[in-house]
Amino acid sequence: MSDFNQYLSACQQRINSFLTDQLNNDQARLERLFSAMRYSVTIGGKRVRPLLVYAACEALNGQPAQADAVAGAVELIHAYSLIHDDLPAMDDDDLRRGQPTCHKAFDEATAILAGDALQALAFDWLASLGEYAPATRLHMVQILARAAGPLGMVGGQAIDLGAVGEKLDLATLESMHRHKTGALISASVQLGALASGQASEPQLKALAQYAESIGLAFQVQDDILDIESDTSVLGKRQGADLARDKPTYPALLGLQGARDLASQLRDQALDSLSGFGTGAERLRQLADYIVQRRF
Amino acid sequence: MSDFNQYLSACQQRINSFLTDQLNNDQARLERLFSAMRYSVTIGGKRVRPLLVYAACEALNGQPAQADAVAGAVELIHAYSLIHDDLPAMDDDDLRRGQPTCHKAFDEATAILAGDALQALAFDWLASLGEYAPATRLHMVQILARAAGPLGMVGGQAIDLGAVGEKLDLATLESMHRHKTGALISASVQLGALASGQASEPQLKALAQYAESIGLAFQVQDDILDIESDTSVLGKRQGADLARDKPTYPALLGLQGARDLASQLRDQALDSLSGFGTGAERLRQLADYIVQRRF
Repeated sequence: MSDFNQYLSACQQRINSFLTDQLNNDQARLERLFSAMRYSVTIGGKRVRPLLVYAACEALNGQPAQADAVAGAVELIHAYSLIHDDLPAMDDDDLRRGQPTCHKAFDEATAILAGDALQALAFDWLASLGEYAPATRLHMVQILARAAGPLGMVGGQAIDLGAVGEKLDLATLESMHRHKTGALISASVQLGALASGQASEPQLKALAQYAESIGLAFQVQDDILDIESDTSVLGKRQGADLARDKPTYPALLGLQGARDLASQLRDQALDSLSGFGTGAERLRQLADYIVQRRF
Repeated sequence: MSDFNQYLSACQQRINSFLTDQLNNDQARLERLFSAMRYSVTIGGKRVRPLLVYAACEALNGQPAQADAVAGAVELIHAYSLIHDDLPAMDDDDLRRGQPTCHKAFDEATAILAGDALQALAFDWLASLGEYAPATRLHMVQILARAAGPLGMVGGQAIDLGAVGEKLDLATLESMHRHKTGALISASVQLGALASGQASEPQLKALAQYAESIGLAFQVQDDILDIESDTSVLGKRQGADLARDKPTYPALLGLQGARDLASQLRDQALDSLSGFGTGAERLRQLADYIVQRRF
C-alpha cells in the first residue's frame, strides 16, 4: 500500500471512529432515529470532505486531533444531504454505496428526520466540540451554514432539480456544481485551515482557490465515472445521470473533453498551493486522487 | 384592542417584516426555492416563539431590535419543521393555517429543500446577524442546535412517529412534548434573554423553568383545540390527531382534566417569574395567552 493510501486509510479510520463514538444514544424511544443517523453516516464512502479537512489542517501545521470535530461536522452535513437526495421525491435512489439507502433500510419519515437531525448536530458539534476560540468557532459555523444553505449546497440541489431535462450551457452547469458540491468541499478546506489555529488571510485565500478547482474537478470526475463504471464498482446504477437526462460534463464536452477539463482543474489546484511547503503534500496528493479515482 | 393585543400585533409585524427583508434573492435559478422558503415563513401563524424571544429580551431590559435576528432564527427552525412535518411521508397534511402546505403549493422535492435551507439559514443568521459578542453568539448556536436536533425537536418528532397507535402514559407523552415543542419554546426564552446582553445565571434558570411550563401548557392547549375547534378556525382538519390515533392529553386525562393541567402549568410559569419586576409583564401575559388562545 502506498504512503498516500495508508494516509487515506488512517484518516478514514480516524473519522469513522470519531463519528461512531459521537453518535451514541441511550434513550430507547430515540434509538430508531439514531440508528438511521449512524447507518447513514457509517455506511462507508470515501470521506473526501474529512480528508480535505485533515489535509488542510496539516498544511498549516495543525494536528489531526484538532480537526476531528470539524471533519465530523462536515461529514454530517454531507451524510444528511445524501439521505434527502435519495428520497423518492428527490432522486428516488434505492442504493447508495452498494447498500440500501436510508429510506429503504428504515422508512421515509425516519430518513427525513435523520437528515434533519444530522444537520442540527453538525452545528452543535462545531459550537461545542474541540478547543477552538469562540471567534474561530463562530467563523466556522458561518462558513458551514453558508456552504450548506440556500446559497450553497441546498441551492445547488434546487438548481439541479430545476434543470432536469434542460440543456444547460457550461457556465450554468458550473454554477450548479459550485453550489451543489463545490461549496461544501470549499468549506472543508477552509474549516480545516481554521482548525489549525494559525491560518493567515493569504493562506485562506490560496486554499479557497485550491478548493474551488478540486471541487469542480471532483464533480467532473463524478460525471465521468457515472458513464464509465458499472454498478458493482460505483454502488449505484451506472449511467443513472444520463438515464435521468441530467446535464453532465461528458454530455456537454464529450468524454475526452471532460477528462481534459478534470486534469486542467487538478493543475490549477496544484498551482494554488505553490506558496505552501511540504506540509501541503497531502492536499496535492488529494488533488491527484480526486481526478484519478475509479469510484 | 387591548394593550396586550397591540403588543402581539406589533411583535408579529416586526418579525414578519424582518423575515421578509432577509429572505430576498436575486438569482433566477434559486427563485423557486426562495419562494417556497418565503411562502412557508410568511404564511402566517401566531409567532409564539418570536413573541417569547422579544418578551424574554424585554424582561431583562433589552430592546426589540436586539432580538430580531434571534427571533427570526427561531422562527426559521419552526417553519422548516412544519414543512417537513406536513410531508406525505410524515403527517401528510394538505392544509396549514388554512393555506396549502408547502409541498402542495410547490412540490415535495422543493418542500424538502426549502426546509433544509431554512434550517441552515437559522444558524447562519445566529452566527452573522445582530450585535452579540462572539461567546454569546456561540452560546446561542449551541442552544438552538441542541433544541432543534435529535435530543430536541427532531427527537420529539421521532418519538411521536413511533408512538402512533400506541397507548402512552402521561410521563411518556410529556417526554415526547418536552422534545417536540418544549425544546424550541424553551430555547426561544433563553435566546431572548441572551439577546438582552445582560442575563445572569439565576435569571436564565428561572426563565428556563418558565419556559418548560409554558412549553407543556402550549401543547396541552393544542391538543384541546384539536378537539374543540372546527377546521375554519384552526386551519387544519379538526380532530386530526384523534383520527390518526395520536396520543393526546384529552385522550389521557379527559377534556376537563386537560384544561385543569393547562391552568396549573400556567400558574407554575407565573411562579417562576416571581423574582422579576414589571419588565416581565409580557411574559406573564404570554403565559395567559397560551392557555386561553382559541387557535
